[in-house]
Amino acid sequence: MSKKQEVLPRSVPLDTPAHELLRAPKDFTLGAVDPKSTPGYSGNKISGADDLKETGQVLDGLQERLFADSRSGATPKVLLILQAMDTAGKGGIVRHVVGLVDPQGVEHHAFKAPTEEEKAHDFLWRIEKELPGAGYIGVFDRSHYEDVLIHKVRGYADDAELERRYAAINEFEARLVAEDTKVVKVMMHISKDEQRSRLAERLERPDKHWKFNPGDIDERLLWDDYMHAYEVAINRTNTEAAPWHVIPANRKWYARLAVASLLREALEDIDPQWPVATFDVKKERKRLQKS
Amino acid sequence: MSKKQEVLPRSVPLDTPAHELLRAPKDFTLGAVDPKSTPGYSGNKISGADDLKETGQVLDGLQERLFADSRSGATPKVLLILQAMDTAGKGGIVRHVVGLVDPQGVEHHAFKAPTEEEKAHDFLWRIEKELPGAGYIGVFDRSHYEDVLIHKVRGYADDAELERRYAAINEFEARLVAEDTKVVKVMMHISKDEQRSRLAERLERPDKHWKFNPGDIDERLLWDDYMHAYEVAINRTNTEAAPWHVIPANRKWYARLAVASLLREALEDIDPQWPVATFDVKKERKRLQKS
Repeated sequence: MSKKQEVLPRSVPLDTPAHELLRAPKDFTLGAVDPKSTPGYSGNKISGADDLKETGQVLDGLQERLFADSRSGATPKVLLILQAMDTAGKGGIVRHVVGLVDPQGVEHHAFKAPTEEEKAHDFLWRIEKELPGAGYIGVFDRSHYEDVLIHKVRGYADDAELERRYAAINEFEARLVAEDTKVVKVMMHISKDEQRSRLAERLERPDKHWKFNPGDIDERLLWDDYMHAYEVAINRTNTEAAPWHVIPANRKWYARLAVASLLREALEDIDPQWPVATFDVKKERKRLQKS
Repeated sequence: MSKKQEVLPRSVPLDTPAHELLRAPKDFTLGAVDPKSTPGYSGNKISGADDLKETGQVLDGLQERLFADSRSGATPKVLLILQAMDTAGKGGIVRHVVGLVDPQGVEHHAFKAPTEEEKAHDFLWRIEKELPGAGYIGVFDRSHYEDVLIHKVRGYADDAELERRYAAINEFEARLVAEDTKVVKVMMHISKDEQRSRLAERLERPDKHWKFNPGDIDERLLWDDYMHAYEVAINRTNTEAAPWHVIPANRKWYARLAVASLLREALEDIDPQWPVATFDVKKERKRLQKS
């Protein structure tokens, strides 16, 4: 920890801040994003791993300050929302990026198909319960966006209901931001071919079978519908308060570096500080000596 | 991940399994444990860090299998319960040991002073809500044991109530074990002098002030009462189903290696397996090719 104090500002691996570089523009189309590309980064897989490690050290220090600051009443927290097609690497982000910081400061939740109880409530009910507390980095592996993605593709919700949900999401996220939550929304974008080869690997390897579900291919057959649903959802909820970032994700190492950079920038923007002692240090030192 | 498949059984760093070596014996006394000692380990801080890293790789593979196995219905889970005096290193265990595995497979909870709502229920009510699900490693930083430690020392509960609680804890933990929870109970034992120097460090360093609370010294003034309360609690709840382990913790590197070894042994005892595919691999391969 003494090392952390001495950490100097380090060079950032991307040539432009990730939140600018990867932000979905107005009238966003997925066709504009090449899943194989590595925007803003001229390095390769090897240097990418080194840069991830270094970004992780910075993140780790920032996360500890965020947590510490909250103990004396600071309210900021971070919510990382991960959305993607199957195999795009959400799990790898949690393992290799979120895993770079202290587990005590992370609140991770993977949203599955809703339970009967969850279905009996509005779609944001179960989301609300998993929001991170002050000082935490919350991580959503899937989220309320499923309710405008699979629901649109599968027709579980009609157009009027989808409209209601886009608006509800924007209001909900605006409230989170007003409550001092830094909302980092990430769509990880892989190509359809890349998904095929990743699913094929899951089928080839017995230690990967548990990650495969025949339903994954059913969803894959609706690939174009999903891409359209993503485009609509991103455009309808790409607010100033909670903008979308779209990460080319065919190269896992790039996607990890990009998300780590987004988290780093979010925390640098919060700029958490070590809280000032609310006790009399000299007096406590004396009490300690006598004890 | 392909590397994981090839992991061969590795040598274990301790000369005796940690769950035997560190298990509290019948009629346990804390005087029998030297907080500076490193039972079963002849290495030093440097080799200890290497051995922790290697144990972490084994742990990581076992945790993934535990999680995978649960997806096809296996019920085992692990609950690590950490108890200790302030500064003994519970937080370091979470950061440096629990942090070695995928955050997706961990459910961590730090119990604080109970809220009014929690106080309005029996002491196990809030504990029950934080129990890990199948496939998870649950980590309790403090636990239901606070209700027989600080409550005994401070007299918040009388003897009859404490007796009720010891018995209730034993029944509760026996049920967890019957529900396929591997309960790993750890008391981290530091010396009173070591606590003084760690508290002093927190007072010296502004980036550590947030970890200090004048109440920590109030508790320290009751050190002997706490040691007695720990001895009684350990002896009253040191069951075959859920035994206690007492870890000499003056050397942080040893305590981390010891707890990592306990977790590794717990997972090896569960011996989780990659689940067998419940789908027709050939058929899915064909569907994928066509998609």
